[in-house]
Amino acid sequence: MRNLLLELRYDGSDFHGWQIQKDDITVQQIMTEAFLKVTGEKVNITGCSRTDTGVHANMYCCNLHSESEIPASNFPNALNFYLPPTISVYGCKEVDDSFHARFDAKEKEYIYLIYNGKYRNPFYEKRALLYSYKLDEKYLNEIVQIFKGKHDFSAFCNAGSDVEDKTRTIYDISLERENELVKVKIRGDGFLYNMVRIIVGTLLDISNGKIDPSSLIDIIESKDRNKAGVTAPAHGLYLNKVIY
Amino acid sequence: MRNLLLELRYDGSDFHGWQIQKDDITVQQIMTEAFLKVTGEKVNITGCSRTDTGVHANMYCCNLHSESEIPASNFPNALNFYLPPTISVYGCKEVDDSFHARFDAKEKEYIYLIYNGKYRNPFYEKRALLYSYKLDEKYLNEIVQIFKGKHDFSAFCNAGSDVEDKTRTIYDISLERENELVKVKIRGDGFLYNMVRIIVGTLLDISNGKIDPSSLIDIIESKDRNKAGVTAPAHGLYLNKVIY
Repeated sequence: MRNLLLELRYDGSDFHGWQIQKDDITVQQIMTEAFLKVTGEKVNITGCSRTDTGVHANMYCCNLHSESEIPASNFPNALNFYLPPTISVYGCKEVDDSFHARFDAKEKEYIYLIYNGKYRNPFYEKRALLYSYKLDEKYLNEIVQIFKGKHDFSAFCNAGSDVEDKTRTIYDISLERENELVKVKIRGDGFLYNMVRIIVGTLLDISNGKIDPSSLIDIIESKDRNKAGVTAPAHGLYLNKVIY
Repeated sequence: MRNLLLELRYDGSDFHGWQIQKDDITVQQIMTEAFLKVTGEKVNITGCSRTDTGVHANMYCCNLHSESEIPASNFPNALNFYLPPTISVYGCKEVDDSFHARFDAKEKEYIYLIYNGKYRNPFYEKRALLYSYKLDEKYLNEIVQIFKGKHDFSAFCNAGSDVEDKTRTIYDISLERENELVKVKIRGDGFLYNMVRIIVGTLLDISNGKIDPSSLIDIIESKDRNKAGVTAPAHGLYLNKVIY
C-alpha cells in the first residue's frame, strides 16, 4: 500500500469547496471519482484544508493510500484526463506511510486578490474582489505588520469552527500592487475559519474609514469577532502554498 | 447627434467574435442590445476590428452616433449594468463627427499568451495556449526581430480576407516570460486576417524544429501562406491596445 501525495490547482468558482458534501459538487468528490476511473480503487482522499465555496487554489495538497502500481509521475496526466479543466494535478510523489496532508502541514500561504479598478474586469470575474474605491496598498502594508507573530486570533474567526486553541503565528503578511491588481499575501503556521477573509475585510474597513487603524491591537486583544471587519468574499482567496 | 467612442474589455470565450452574425452570439450584438436598453436607441456600432471566435480584448474600441443626452462618463456604468460579466465598458468620450473606430486606428497592439507549463492551468483555460514543450523565449525574441518594419505579409494571411494590399508595418515585436507564462507582444499599423496567430504558430514551428529559422526571410518573401507555420489557436490572442 503506497501513500501518495498529490499537488493540484483549481479554480473554485464551480465547486462547493473541497470537502465532500451530500448534494453539492466538491473538489474532493471529483478527485475521488477521477482516481476511481484511473485505478479502479475507491480511496479516501485527505485534503490539507477545507476550502470554502468559491475559494481557489494555486497549490492544494492531498494524500491517499493506494494499491495501484502506476508510477507516481504518471498520475498527473492520468488524473487530468478525467478531471474537468477547472482542476489540474501537477504533482504526485510517494510519501511515508504516516504522512497526513492536513496534520503534517507546517506552513500555509494564502493570497487574496483585489481588483482595484473603477470598472469590473472580465478576466478577474470570480477570481478577484472588485473594489472600486481608493486603496493605498503602501499604507495598508505598514498597518498589517501588526498581525505578524503569535496571537490569539479569535476576533478573526467566524462561527463554524470547533477549534479550541485559536492561537496562530503569522510569519509574513504584505500587500503589493501591479496596476489595478492588489495582492495580499499571508503566510502562517495555520489559519482559523475565514481568518484570511476577515483580515482582508478588516483592511478594507480600515481603508474606507469604518475601522480606526490604531484600534487594531485592541481588536486582536478583544478576541471578539464583532470588533473586526467584514468577511471579504470567498472568490478573491487562493490557497497559494503548503509547506510540509 | 453625438459620436461616442467606447472602450471595452471582453473575455471572448463565449462569443463568436465581434461582428454581428445571424445565429451566433457576438460582442457587437450584445453591445447593441445593451445600448438599446440604456437609451432606447437602436444604433449601428462600428468596431475597430473583427475579432475571431474566442479572441479576447483588453482594449477594444467602437463608436456610434446617438441622440441620447446621457453624459459620456455615465455610459460605462449604465452599459455594464446590462452587459454580461464577460464584457466591461471602461471608457466613453465624445469624438468628432467624422471619427471612425476602424478607419482612424493608427496602430494596434496584440498580445498572445502561451502557458508553457508541463500541465494545464485552470486559470489560463481558454485564456492562453497550453504549450508543454521547451520554449526558449530569449532565442525566439531574437528571431522575431526579422518581422519588424514594412513587409508584404501575404504568407501570414489566411484565406477569408479580401484585402488587396498586404503590406503592413510592424513597429515592435517581443517575447517575454513570467514563470510559465510567455507573452508575445506585437504592435503595428494594421494586421491581416489571422496574421498574429500565424506569426505565433510559425514561432512554435521554429521552436519545435519544423521550420528552420534561417528560412524566415524566404518565407516572408515567398508571400506563400503554405510556407509559414500553423495558425495558433484563437484563445491565446488578445487585442491589447488601439491607438488613434
